[in-house]
Amino acid sequence: MVASAFLPELWTEILVPVCAVVGIAFSLFQWFIVSRVRVSSDQGASSSSSGGSKNGYGDYLIEEEEGVNDQSVVAKCAEIQTAISEGATSFLFTEYRYVGVFMVIFAAIIFVFLGSVEGFSTENKPCTYDETKTCKPALATAAFSTIAFVLGAVTSVLSGFLGMKIATYANARTTLEARKGVGKAFIVAFRSGAVMGFLLAASGLLVLYVTINVFKIYYGDDWEGLFEAITGYGLGGSSMALFGRVGGGIYTKAADVGADLVGKIERNIPEDDPRNPAVIADNVGDNVGDIAGMGSDLFGSYAEASCAALVVASISSFGINHDFTAMCYPLLISSMGILVCLITTLFATDFFEIKAVKEIEPALKNQLIISTVIMTVGIAIVSYVGLPSSFTIFNFGTQKVVQNWQLFLCVCVGLWAGLIIGFVTEYYTSNAYSPVQDVADSCRTGAATNVIFGLALGYKSVIIPIFAIAVSIFVSFSFAAMYGVAVAALGMLSTIATGLAIDAYGPISDNAGGIAEMAGMSHRIRERTDALDAAGNTTAAIGKGFAIGSAALVSLALFGAFVSRAGVHTVDVLTPKVIIGLLVGAMLPYWFSAMTMKSVGSAALKMVEEVRRQFNTIPGLMEGTAKPDYATCVKISTDASIKEMIPPGCLVMLTPLIVGFFFGVETLSGVLAGSLVSGVQIAISASNTGGAWDNAKKYIEAGVSEHAKSLGPKGSEPHKAAVIGDTIGDPLKDTSGPSLNILIKLMAVESLVFAPFFATHGGILFKYL
Amino acid sequence: MVASAFLPELWTEILVPVCAVVGIAFSLFQWFIVSRVRVSSDQGASSSSSGGSKNGYGDYLIEEEEGVNDQSVVAKCAEIQTAISEGATSFLFTEYRYVGVFMVIFAAIIFVFLGSVEGFSTENKPCTYDETKTCKPALATAAFSTIAFVLGAVTSVLSGFLGMKIATYANARTTLEARKGVGKAFIVAFRSGAVMGFLLAASGLLVLYVTINVFKIYYGDDWEGLFEAITGYGLGGSSMALFGRVGGGIYTKAADVGADLVGKIERNIPEDDPRNPAVIADNVGDNVGDIAGMGSDLFGSYAEASCAALVVASISSFGINHDFTAMCYPLLISSMGILVCLITTLFATDFFEIKAVKEIEPALKNQLIISTVIMTVGIAIVSYVGLPSSFTIFNFGTQKVVQNWQLFLCVCVGLWAGLIIGFVTEYYTSNAYSPVQDVADSCRTGAATNVIFGLALGYKSVIIPIFAIAVSIFVSFSFAAMYGVAVAALGMLSTIATGLAIDAYGPISDNAGGIAEMAGMSHRIRERTDALDAAGNTTAAIGKGFAIGSAALVSLALFGAFVSRAGVHTVDVLTPKVIIGLLVGAMLPYWFSAMTMKSVGSAALKMVEEVRRQFNTIPGLMEGTAKPDYATCVKISTDASIKEMIPPGCLVMLTPLIVGFFFGVETLSGVLAGSLVSGVQIAISASNTGGAWDNAKKYIEAGVSEHAKSLGPKGSEPHKAAVIGDTIGDPLKDTSGPSLNILIKLMAVESLVFAPFFATHGGILFKYL
Repeated sequence: MVASAFLPELWTEILVPVCAVVGIAFSLFQWFIVSRVRVSSDQGASSSSSGGSKNGYGDYLIEEEEGVNDQSVVAKCAEIQTAISEGATSFLFTEYRYVGVFMVIFAAIIFVFLGSVEGFSTENKPCTYDETKTCKPALATAAFSTIAFVLGAVTSVLSGFLGMKIATYANARTTLEARKGVGKAFIVAFRSGAVMGFLLAASGLLVLYVTINVFKIYYGDDWEGLFEAITGYGLGGSSMALFGRVGGGIYTKAADVGADLVGKIERNIPEDDPRNPAVIADNVGDNVGDIAGMGSDLFGSYAEASCAALVVASISSFGINHDFTAMCYPLLISSMGILVCLITTLFATDFFEIKAVKEIEPALKNQLIISTVIMTVGIAIVSYVGLPSSFTIFNFGTQKVVQNWQLFLCVCVGLWAGLIIGFVTEYYTSNAYSPVQDVADSCRTGAATNVIFGLALGYKSVIIPIFAIAVSIFVSFSFAAMYGVAVAALGMLSTIATGLAIDAYGPISDNAGGIAEMAGMSHRIRERTDALDAAGNTTAAIGKGFAIGSAALVSLALFGAFVSRAGVHTVDVLTPKVIIGLLVGAMLPYWFSAMTMKSVGSAALKMVEEVRRQFNTIPGLMEGTAKPDYATCVKISTDASIKEMIPPGCLVMLTPLIVGFFFGVETLSGVLAGSLVSGVQIAISASNTGGAWDNAKKYIEAGVSEHAKSLGPKGSEPHKAAVIGDTIGDPLKDTSGPSLNILIKLMAVESLVFAPFFATHGGILFKYL
Repeated sequence: MVASAFLPELWTEILVPVCAVVGIAFSLFQWFIVSRVRVSSDQGASSSSSGGSKNGYGDYLIEEEEGVNDQSVVAKCAEIQTAISEGATSFLFTEYRYVGVFMVIFAAIIFVFLGSVEGFSTENKPCTYDETKTCKPALATAAFSTIAFVLGAVTSVLSGFLGMKIATYANARTTLEARKGVGKAFIVAFRSGAVMGFLLAASGLLVLYVTINVFKIYYGDDWEGLFEAITGYGLGGSSMALFGRVGGGIYTKAADVGADLVGKIERNIPEDDPRNPAVIADNVGDNVGDIAGMGSDLFGSYAEASCAALVVASISSFGINHDFTAMCYPLLISSMGILVCLITTLFATDFFEIKAVKEIEPALKNQLIISTVIMTVGIAIVSYVGLPSSFTIFNFGTQKVVQNWQLFLCVCVGLWAGLIIGFVTEYYTSNAYSPVQDVADSCRTGAATNVIFGLALGYKSVIIPIFAIAVSIFVSFSFAAMYGVAVAALGMLSTIATGLAIDAYGPISDNAGGIAEMAGMSHRIRERTDALDAAGNTTAAIGKGFAIGSAALVSLALFGAFVSRAGVHTVDVLTPKVIIGLLVGAMLPYWFSAMTMKSVGSAALKMVEEVRRQFNTIPGLMEGTAKPDYATCVKISTDASIKEMIPPGCLVMLTPLIVGFFFGVETLSGVLAGSLVSGVQIAISASNTGGAWDNAKKYIEAGVSEHAKSLGPKGSEPHKAAVIGDTIGDPLKDTSGPSLNILIKLMAVESLVFAPFFATHGGILFKYL
C-alpha cells in the first residue's frame, strides 16, 4: 500500500478555494485603490486626498509647478479614455460574436466525435487501469468534455475582457498620476496590472476547482474519466486565446504600422499625435492585443498545464488510489503561487518606493526574482505536505516510481528556467546591453544592416532559452515522465499573477503616454510616461519569453498525455509516418506566420490609404484645426482582424483533426513534435527581434549615452533606419511570434481531447491504402 | 537463393567508368567551343570565324551597328577578367590553406577515433551480418575512412576550383558575345555552365568508382567494411563544401552589401560601376560563393547520397550475396544521369536556338523538364537491368523484401519532387508571377512593408516543397526503408549535370553584366546581359531549391544509415534523451544563421568604411578620373570570410562529436532529426525571400508592365525600398540559406562516419551520472 499525502483531503478542499478567493479579493482591493484616482473635473481635490504621505511625494501637480492647472486637460483625458475603452469593447464584442459561432460549432464537433468512439453507447465499460471496475461510458466523457470546453472558453473570454476593462480604466489614471511624479504613475500602472494578474490566476483556479468538484458528483470513483473530461477546459481556454491573440495581434499591428508609416515616416509627426487618424485605433489595439490576447494566452497555458498534469495523474497512483490531495498537487502549486505573488506585489507597491526613472526597471525585475525565490520555498512546502513520500507515475505503459523531492525538483526546474528565460530575453531586448546597442549602431549604414543585425540577434537569442527548456525537460522527464514536464510547466506558470502584472503594466504605460500626447499635456509628463513605457517594452518581451517557454513545456506535457490517451507507446522517428509528420509539423509555424504577417501587411496597407486619404482630404488636419475621423480607422482594423483571423485559426484548429482522421495518431504525434520544436524557435526569435528593434529605436530617441547621441536625434538617417526596423518588428513581436505559442499548445490539447476518437476511427487513409 | 541482377558484373565494371569518361569528354568539348571566343585584341577576326550560321545570327557586332568598334573595350574586358580571376584564385588558395590544416587535423581525428573502437587491434573480427565469416578490423576501417575522407575533400576542392576557373574564363567571353546578340551570349554562358556541371558529375562518379575498386582489393568479400570506409568520401566532400559555402558566402555578400550600401544608396551610382572600389571584390564573390561554393555543395550531396545508399546496401541482400551490379545501382543511376543530361544539353545548345530575351527563361526551364522526362525512362532501364526482380533491404534490424519496380518508384519520386520544388521556387522568386509582384507593390509604402511581405512570401514558399519532400520520403521509406530514401535523393540529384549547368549560368551572366558595365560598353549590351542575369536569378533560386530538397533527403538517408551503424533500432520521441536532442537540434540552424548573418553584417560594415574612405580620400574617384584601390577591398572580403567561417564551421563539425561523445547516440539522433526538420524550412524560406526581393527590385528597374512602371524608375522611393529589401536578402539567400543545406547533411554524415566510435565510447555523461 502506497502512503498518501500528509495534508488531509478536507484541508485541500478548503485551502484551494480559499487561496483563489484571497487572490480575487486582493485583486478587487487593488482595483479599489486605483479607482481613487478620479478622472473627472474635480480631480484636483480628489487626488490630493488620495495621495497619502506613504510614497513620500509632495502632491503638487506638474502643472502647478509650471504655473498652469488646466482642468480641460483632465476632461480631455477622460474623453480619450472613453474613446479607447469604447473602441476596445466594441471590437471585443464583435470578435466574441464570431468566436461564439465557432465555439458552438466546435462544441458540437467535440460531442459528436467523442460520442462516436463507442457508437454513442450509454453503457458503463470496464476501466483501463483496472478491468474489474466499471467506468463511465464514452458518451459521458463527450458530454462533460463539451461542458468543460465551454467553461474554459467562457473563462478565457472573461479573463481577456476584464483585463482590457481594467487596462482602459487605468491608462488615463496613470497619465494623471504622472503629473505628481513618476513613482505615483508607476504605482497606478503596476496596481492595475496586478488587478488583472490576480483576477486571472485566481478565477482560473477557482473555475477549474469548482468544475472538478461538480463533475466528481457524476463520475464518483471514475477519476480517469473525470480528468479526461476536464481536458476540455484547457481546449476551451486555448482556442479562445488563439482568436484573441491572432485577432488582437492583427488589430493592434495593422493600426500601429499604418499609423507609423504615414504619421512618423511621411508626415513627420510624433507617435500618438492626435492629428493622426489611426491613433485611437493604435491605442485600442494595445488593449485588445497585448492585454486581452496575452491574458487569454497565459490563462490557456495555465489551464492546459493543469489539465495535462491531472490527466496523467489520474492514471498514476494518485488516481488509482484516489488520493485527492496528491491529485490536486497542481492546484495546490497554483494556490501557493497566488499567496507568493501577493507577498511579492507588496514589495513593489508598499515595501519600497520608486523615486526615479532608473529605479523602474530594477523594481520590475526584482518582482521576478522575489517571486521566484519565495515560490521555491512555497513549492517545497506544497511538495512536502501535498504528496506522499513515494508514488508511481504513468510512463507510456509502465508505472514509474517517483519520490516527492524529485517532483519538487521538477517544479523548481521549470520555475527557475522561466527566470533564466526572462533574464536572457531582457539581455537581448533591453537597450541597456550591447546586443540592442549593436543593432542601433548598425543603423548608421541604413535600414538594411539594421534588419540583418536584428534578425541575427533574434536567432542568437534562441540559444540559451532552448538550453534552459531542454534542461527542464530532461530533468523533469527523467524524474517523473510527462507528469514531471507538466508540473515543470506549472512551476514556470506558478508566478503567473506577478508575471501578468508586470506584463500588463507595459501596455497601460504605453496607453498612458498616448493619452498624455493626445491631451496635449506637458512634455515633461510625456517624458515620464515614456520612461514607464521603455521599461514596459522590456517586461513585455520578458512576458513573451515566459509565455513561450511555458508553452513549450505545456505542449510537450499535452503531447505526452495525448500519446498515453491514444494508446501509443513509442513515437519512432525511424518510421515513415512519424518522420513525415515531424517534417510537416515543423513547417506549420512558417505557414501560420506567413498568414499572419501577410494579414498585418495587407491590413496596414488599407490603414495607410485611409490615413493618407484623411490627411489629403480633411482641410486643417495637419494644422490641428480639424479633427480626424478616428472611427473609420477603428472600423478598418476591426474588419481586417476579424476577416484575417479566420484562415490561421482554421489552420491550427483543423490540422490535428485532418491529420488524426486521415493519417492516424503516429503521424499526428510527429506533427505535434515537429511543430513544437520548430515553433518555439521562431516564436522566441520573432519576439526578441521585434523587441530589440523597438528598443534600438527608443535608444536612439532617448539619446542617453554619447553613443546614442551620435546616432540621433529623431529624424536623423540612423533614426529613420531604426523606425523601419521597428515597423518590421511589430508584426513579428506582437502578431506572429506570440500566436505561435498558441499554435503549439492548441494543436496538442486538441489532439489530447480527440485522442480516443483518433485511436478508434483515425488513420483511414492508411487503413484503405 | 535470391536472383541477381540482369546486367553482368563485367558490364557494370565497364559501363560506369565509360559513362564518367564520356561526361568528362563532353565537358572538355564544351570548353573547347567556349575557348574559341577569343578575349584579345584580334578578337574581331576570330569571332567572325567562330560564329557559324548554325545559330542563325549575322555576326555583326553591336558596336559596328552603332558605328564604333572599339578594340580597347575588348582589351579592357580581358583586363577585368584577369583581375576577377586572380582575385578568385588568390582567395581560394588562401581558403584552401586554412582548410588544408583543418583537413589534416580532422583526418587524424577520424583515424584515432575510429581506430580506438577496438583499441587499435589489428585482428580480424566476425562479421555483423554473418558471424561465421571474418571481417576486417576496425583499424582498417579507420585507415580507409581517412583515405576516403581525404579523397572526397580533394575532389570537392578541385570541383569548386575548376568551376571557378571555368566561370571566370567564360564571363568576359559572354560579354563579348553579347555584342553579337543575346542568343550567342546565352550559348556561351550556358556551355560554360555545362562544362562545370559535367566535369563535376563525371569526376565525382569516377573518383568514387575507382576508390571502391581499389579498396576492394584489400577488403575482398568484406563489403560491409568496404562501404563503411567509403562513407569517409561523403564526409570529405561535404566538409570542404561547408567551408566553401560559408567562406564564399560571407566573401560574396560582404562585398556585395558593402558595394551596394555606399554605391547604390549613398553615391547613387549604378551597380558594377568601375568607380566603386568594392566592385571587383563583388564580382570575385560571385565566383567563389555561387560557383565554387555551389559546386562543392552539390558534389557533397551527390557523394553523400551515394555513400548512404551504398552503406545500407552493403548490409542488405546486395551486399550479403555479393551482387556487384545491384550494389552499384546508385552508380548506374548517376551514369545514366550523365548520358541523359548530355542529350538534354543539346536541346539548349544545338536543337533549338534563342532569338529573343523572352525565350531565355523557358529554355532554361525546358532543360529541367526534358532531363526529368528522359531520366524517368533512364531510371526504368537501369532498374530493370541493374536490379534483381526481388531483393531484401536492411531496415533497422530486419530485412525488408523489395521489388525492383518499387525501387524504380523511389528514384522517380525523388526526381519528380525535385522538379516540383524547382517550379514552386520559380513561382515564388520570378517576377513574372504575382508573389514577387505583390512584394514589389508593397514597396509603395516603404521598406518596412517590403520586408514584411518578403518574409511572409518566404515562409509561404516552404509549404509545397515540404509536402513534396514529405511525399518522397513517405513513398521511398515505405517501399525500401532508408535505402529508398537514399536512392530518392540520388534520383533528385541524377540530373545534377543539367542542374549545375543552369545554376552556374547565373553567376556567369551576372559577371558578364558587371564586365560590360566596367568596360564601359554600350548600354544595349548591358540590357542583354541584364536579361540573361534576370533569368539567372531565377535559375539560381531553382538550383538552391534542388540543393535544399536533395539535402533533406540525403540527410535523412544518412541519418538512417547512422542509426543502423550505431545499432540503434528506435529513436523514440517519448524519451528525454531524444526530445531534448530534437529541441536543441532544431535550434542549431538558428544559431548557425545568427553567426553567418552577423558575419556578413560586420564584414559589410568594414567594407562600407573602406569604400567610403576611398570615395572621400581619393580625389577624382567620383568623376572617373582616378582609379579606386580594388585590392584593399578584395583583401577585406578575404580576411573577413576566412576569419568568420571558423566559428560556424566549428559549430557544425563539433556538435556531432560533442553530443555523440557526451550524450550518446540517442540524443545525437534527436539532434540530427531536429536540425533536419527545422533547417530545411529556414533554408527554403531564406533562399526564396532573398530571391524574391532581388527580383522585385529588378521588376521595378526593368519597368516592363504598367504596374512596374508606376513603381519605378530607378531612384524612386519604391525603388529605394526595393534596394533595401534586396540588400537584406543577400546574406539570407547566398550565405545563411544555402549553408544550412550543408549543416544538415554534414552533421549526419559525420555522425555516420563516427557511429562505431559513439556506439562504443559515446554518452559518457549519462554513464557516470
